[in-house]
Amino acid sequence: MGSRAGIVVTGTEVLTGRVADRNSPWLAEELRRIGVDVAHVVVVGDRPDDLTAALGFLTGLGLDLVITSGGLGPTADDLTADVVARFQGRPSRLDPDLEAHIASIIERLSAGRGWHLDPAATAAGTRKQALVPDGATVIAPVGTAPGLVVPPANGTTGPPVVVLPGPPRELQGMWPAVVEAPLVGAALRGRTELRQRTIRLWGTPESELAATLRDHDDVLGGLEITTCLRDGELEIVTRFAPGAQPAYDALSQIVEEVYGQTLFSADGRTVDDIVADALRSTGQTIATAESCTGGLLAARLTDRPGASAYVLGGVTAYANSIKQGLLDVPEALLDQVGAVSAEVAEAMAAGIRARLGADIGVGITGVAGPDGGSAEKPVGLVHICVTGPDRSIARRIQLPGARADVRARAVVVAMHLIRNLLADEPPG
Amino acid sequence: MGSRAGIVVTGTEVLTGRVADRNSPWLAEELRRIGVDVAHVVVVGDRPDDLTAALGFLTGLGLDLVITSGGLGPTADDLTADVVARFQGRPSRLDPDLEAHIASIIERLSAGRGWHLDPAATAAGTRKQALVPDGATVIAPVGTAPGLVVPPANGTTGPPVVVLPGPPRELQGMWPAVVEAPLVGAALRGRTELRQRTIRLWGTPESELAATLRDHDDVLGGLEITTCLRDGELEIVTRFAPGAQPAYDALSQIVEEVYGQTLFSADGRTVDDIVADALRSTGQTIATAESCTGGLLAARLTDRPGASAYVLGGVTAYANSIKQGLLDVPEALLDQVGAVSAEVAEAMAAGIRARLGADIGVGITGVAGPDGGSAEKPVGLVHICVTGPDRSIARRIQLPGARADVRARAVVVAMHLIRNLLADEPPG
Repeated sequence: MGSRAGIVVTGTEVLTGRVADRNSPWLAEELRRIGVDVAHVVVVGDRPDDLTAALGFLTGLGLDLVITSGGLGPTADDLTADVVARFQGRPSRLDPDLEAHIASIIERLSAGRGWHLDPAATAAGTRKQALVPDGATVIAPVGTAPGLVVPPANGTTGPPVVVLPGPPRELQGMWPAVVEAPLVGAALRGRTELRQRTIRLWGTPESELAATLRDHDDVLGGLEITTCLRDGELEIVTRFAPGAQPAYDALSQIVEEVYGQTLFSADGRTVDDIVADALRSTGQTIATAESCTGGLLAARLTDRPGASAYVLGGVTAYANSIKQGLLDVPEALLDQVGAVSAEVAEAMAAGIRARLGADIGVGITGVAGPDGGSAEKPVGLVHICVTGPDRSIARRIQLPGARADVRARAVVVAMHLIRNLLADEPPG
Repeated sequence: MGSRAGIVVTGTEVLTGRVADRNSPWLAEELRRIGVDVAHVVVVGDRPDDLTAALGFLTGLGLDLVITSGGLGPTADDLTADVVARFQGRPSRLDPDLEAHIASIIERLSAGRGWHLDPAATAAGTRKQALVPDGATVIAPVGTAPGLVVPPANGTTGPPVVVLPGPPRELQGMWPAVVEAPLVGAALRGRTELRQRTIRLWGTPESELAATLRDHDDVLGGLEITTCLRDGELEIVTRFAPGAQPAYDALSQIVEEVYGQTLFSADGRTVDDIVADALRSTGQTIATAESCTGGLLAARLTDRPGASAYVLGGVTAYANSIKQGLLDVPEALLDQVGAVSAEVAEAMAAGIRARLGADIGVGITGVAGPDGGSAEKPVGLVHICVTGPDRSIARRIQLPGARADVRARAVVVAMHLIRNLLADEPPG
């Protein structure tokens, strides 16, 4: 293993789950790229003692670097810079140039947005943000809050603590300057490359794979293999030093031999990547007709840049009248078999395909719950149909879980059926 | 303050951000309901030493309870139960009844799904999951993995460690049994109620609010106030013991007096709650026409149970031909002013409203990026129009950030415009 880092995410809003932590996953990935492994992520509220305890825990583990995110705003509950300075034993003083720089940013911002700020409050906030611990490196702000790299006090050992703001756009924009800071470079000297590879299977139970890995334990030394089943996809992520590349090649070959039927990605691409690549390379277009998933499939397909090259659009048809009016599902069919049926999924797929002149049409209809289920058509029953120029793939699935689970999982199944159709494969 | 707890989330897939942690937010909220405050959340990979270090950190803080999630599966990288047993100094032994119970669950599951499991691998996995530390309480499984409440070793002090599986559905289903476990009850004895109230503003800068809070510092004692700006919404969350209720009432009154114009929720309801309640109580229906947001608004409106009572459906019109064909936007208008324009947003809203016979129509068109921007219509420019029986509200916004940020933020603005229209207010 090479260098190791710890991350502290601050903010009561993150601790209590009101805001999702987007920074530690991003930092973990960036650190991995430069050969640094993340050992722990600690989430703490806006309380000085709890933040100090987290810093004590991480710096005591012999890590090479500690990074904090959040708590750099102008308000009183933003206390990270002050706590880190005290923890590292580095008294802070006002940096007048930095103060002027922040003030000019705020002036420009508030002019552009028409804000009328209280001058005294703004000046107090700016002064707070321009306090720099003795010996620290300032990371220029992308928003209004500067970052810091704070070394341990003179004469003591321990990792430097990198202090970054919470808004992901600011943190990400400031990261390159962190990597280039000499204090950070010195802390990470001697790191070795850490490779990470991902293989994805669709429809293999985790316990089966575990048995296979146990059977081949003798050739897999030096690999850190983690498996994770998510929405029916079994993800195998392997991390290893360059010397273990032959062991990884062996693993890769074993998985291919045993699970060739369910293996859909050996190069790290997600099902979204594969579908987008296939649509782009074949020049085909797609259109969606969704009932229970309510637009989630359309939103997922249009999530990536350039989606307009192959996504024409879609219809969310919640009411039956929309299924008739915009998707041309015959009223008689709806009366006869009901909206949640293989026939209606097929008619929706065909209807949107014809209406929008797309190469591929997708129809999804089901019971997302919690209400609306019956003995015959229980909550979690979903019919999906993907129809193309030459053939259609249809599937009836019964999904467990709550409304959000059923909706999310139905979209994943639809993505795989689209993948199967584009690859001219039978459904997995 | 009452009792305090720490949470350990295990799993390299969470640490590296491949899977979002849904358990610690959920647990934090459930703990708050029973008067327990979460001090720290620690995320660790599937490495015994790192997990042991996290347990050492949390149990050393004088917390009343430590909860772990994840790492209870049948595979070798699932090691939480074993590590916790060792940490608490409680040797494990096989519980034959539990083993038989888990085996019967797996048999039922695999019969239902047509899995063909390797009997030896399955038996080994089951045996692993049926190991119970000496003196621990077993929490019956919702999936296949049982939970545990593991007390500290006899003669030592420290919090009990609750061990729960990672899948949110299982963890949530098993939580009531955890709360009722006598070991947990004893650990939390003496806790006091902790109240939490949320106030939401739309369009007030965080620094303004901070100045107001500073001005009234003298009457706000005993309140833990955190403010968080997210997608333009400023959320004020206050936690306090029952004795500080008068201070909270004072805060609430101050905010109402100073920020009456931007205050949209004083009772914890989100903009989604308010829109859903208003649609339901007035019996109105809604339909969406989305371009750059690609179905995200439809997905958000249909996210909640019972949405079919007021959401008729929507159209994702990525291609201009769909804007014409399904939304009746005149071709001449598209040629004249372009797809990203106030006129087209209005035509989309009116078109979907008429086509679907809805009371309210929403049109969104913009440049989500990263490509497709121009000097005149840069990335981040979005036009939104919400049109009802009596009036329309339109807005042109210029949003910062990447594609995902622009899409997400445009949906939030649209939700607030829908709220304004339903409340018969001017747009905030």
